[in-house]
Amino acid sequence: NAKDGKRIVTLIPGDGIGPEIAESVVKIFSAANVPVVWESVNVTPFLKDGKTTIPEDARISVERNKVALKGPLATPIGKGHQSMNLTLRRTFDLFANVRPCKSIVGYKTPFDNVDTVLIRENTEGEYSGIEHMVVPGVVQSIKLITEEASRKCATYAFEYARSIGRPRVTIVHKANIQRLSDGLFLSVAQDVAKEYPDIQVDNKLLDLVSLKIVQDPTQFSDTVMVMPNLYGDILSDLGAGLIGGLGLTPSGNIGKKASIFESVHGTAPDIAGKDLANPTALLLSAVMMLHHMKMDAHANTIQNAVLKTIADGKARTGDLGGRATNSEFTAEVIKNLQA
Amino acid sequence: NAKDGKRIVTLIPGDGIGPEIAESVVKIFSAANVPVVWESVNVTPFLKDGKTTIPEDARISVERNKVALKGPLATPIGKGHQSMNLTLRRTFDLFANVRPCKSIVGYKTPFDNVDTVLIRENTEGEYSGIEHMVVPGVVQSIKLITEEASRKCATYAFEYARSIGRPRVTIVHKANIQRLSDGLFLSVAQDVAKEYPDIQVDNKLLDLVSLKIVQDPTQFSDTVMVMPNLYGDILSDLGAGLIGGLGLTPSGNIGKKASIFESVHGTAPDIAGKDLANPTALLLSAVMMLHHMKMDAHANTIQNAVLKTIADGKARTGDLGGRATNSEFTAEVIKNLQA
Ligand SMILES: CC(C)[C@H](C(=O)O)[C@@H](O)C(=O)O
Ligand SMILES: CC(C)[C@H](C(=O)O)[C@@H](O)C(=O)O
Repeated sequence: NAKDGKRIVTLIPGDGIGPEIAESVVKIFSAANVPVVWESVNVTPFLKDGKTTIPEDARISVERNKVALKGPLATPIGKGHQSMNLTLRRTFDLFANVRPCKSIVGYKTPFDNVDTVLIRENTEGEYSGIEHMVVPGVVQSIKLITEEASRKCATYAFEYARSIGRPRVTIVHKANIQRLSDGLFLSVAQDVAKEYPDIQVDNKLLDLVSLKIVQDPTQFSDTVMVMPNLYGDILSDLGAGLIGGLGLTPSGNIGKKASIFESVHGTAPDIAGKDLANPTALLLSAVMMLHHMKMDAHANTIQNAVLKTIADGKARTGDLGGRATNSEFTAEVIKNLQA
Repeated sequence: NAKDGKRIVTLIPGDGIGPEIAESVVKIFSAANVPVVWESVNVTPFLKDGKTTIPEDARISVERNKVALKGPLATPIGKGHQSMNLTLRRTFDLFANVRPCKSIVGYKTPFDNVDTVLIRENTEGEYSGIEHMVVPGVVQSIKLITEEASRKCATYAFEYARSIGRPRVTIVHKANIQRLSDGLFLSVAQDVAKEYPDIQVDNKLLDLVSLKIVQDPTQFSDTVMVMPNLYGDILSDLGAGLIGGLGLTPSGNIGKKASIFESVHGTAPDIAGKDLANPTALLLSAVMMLHHMKMDAHANTIQNAVLKTIADGKARTGDLGGRATNSEFTAEVIKNLQA
């Protein structure tokens, strides 16, 4: 969707620190002359037929614009409400969740060379929501794996590997235990691999990946990992831990109808409204969004400015051990757009 | 079970490097005058009514002696065979799997201060084995959580925390997603907590634990983590990665009828029979077994000798960057028993 030659993008500022970090993105996009117009919507959930639902205007905006940027959303407490993040992933059938973790130069952790990319199936698996109590004290939760969702996710993983120039896709699974479900995911992904003769494929057990990644994350620098939903939840947070936390990691939820780029940290109610939040995760998600929209030059300019600001160390926010406000950090990023 | 005032313990040497590392344990126990007599059994699996089964004499030995030490077991390839490790856990209802990960002084990894203890539910959850194809391309795997197994596992976690002097138990879960199943595990463990007023209890999401543990593992040095089956599989391998791999981590499978202590690394067929294997994981599992049998003095003597051997660095095996054979390492441990 376009207006005056500019792409219209839905902005879901979200709750807690959401509006502050969204404002930072808006300012930086404007300073960088990114040809994007924001359409801001609120996603206050409501219950419809007992299911958590997003407001109609938000749904229409996302479907019309096909691209959205989203801050953290709180899930209303009380019976019947599902996570708002999951509700969005399901509402728009966002079948693949891309989560890169790359060490940020100048920000020290025990590892300075992390460069992982993982793609998580985003609509089913352990997140099917199908559970029941058989008799009191006996519960079954169903992990649902379908060929259809597995194929869409795996296909995206191979496309993504090709687009970022990685030679390999690694399927992560526990098919030694969940032989039928993870077995299906594995075999479908291996089947998809045949259509990508330029990309190698291998597969590894989830427990082994967890062990190896903390021993030497560079073992995964040349591959795109693809896996069922929960495994991606765990390994992406592990990866975030290796580089400095969820305040630094972007994410993109990819669908056919729409794609939503989001920071996956929480709403941080303790610091909300105090101009103390770190907008980096949302900024890097916006960078990912720009690549998705084929605005690579703008994406690179903004990414370099953000990374330079962190590397310089003058204007770091509190979570990175600095004393800068969000506004000061943002101003510094804008200054670095010229660099 | 006893003989000449000595406890009889079942020894399952296992496959691949199993016999070599088991021999190392036998030699060291004998040099340390541990009052244990070994009853060695082979666990070649066979199919009975389509199920992987262990031989009758092995089953009888384990049930009679109530304590076993086990090396790695290969699972026969071919349809119908379940993992032998799982078969043992199920055959004897070994409901709690204790997996500590402690940094070994002198063996360098990016972390030198890991001291985690994790207890994994060991009989159900994602390992229920209940799966079916609904229609072609649609598979359901059932995660089964029962109050009974959760209670046995949680109770053991609190008992264990008390026995090793940790002030806290941390329940690890994804009850925000699997509300009924992980919700049941969580609420049962919280209920068990009421019977242990001397131990604190808290709970954390699995993804958050994965993130935090790689940022600063010492956050978990004062707690015993307890969790459903698969989560323990993942986090225990992650912990092993932090300290140097599965060649260094012990494990104990606890049941009412019997308990089996095992190294959880593989059979390493590439180096089997070459006297190159590192027996540390099996030795530390044997140490855990001695504590379980209340032979704490012997346990400490052997543990100190093993750790001193690694710390000294003279007789390290290949996996730890050294050139010693298993025999040389074992001889050095025996020398260090006096230290
Ligand atoms: C908020 C929560 C439901 C979500 C998840 O479990 O997927 C989050 O951890 C994530 O990784 O996006
Ligand atoms: C061998 C395999 C079946 C087993 C598991 O998944 O539990 C192993 O990884 C372990 O941790 O003991």
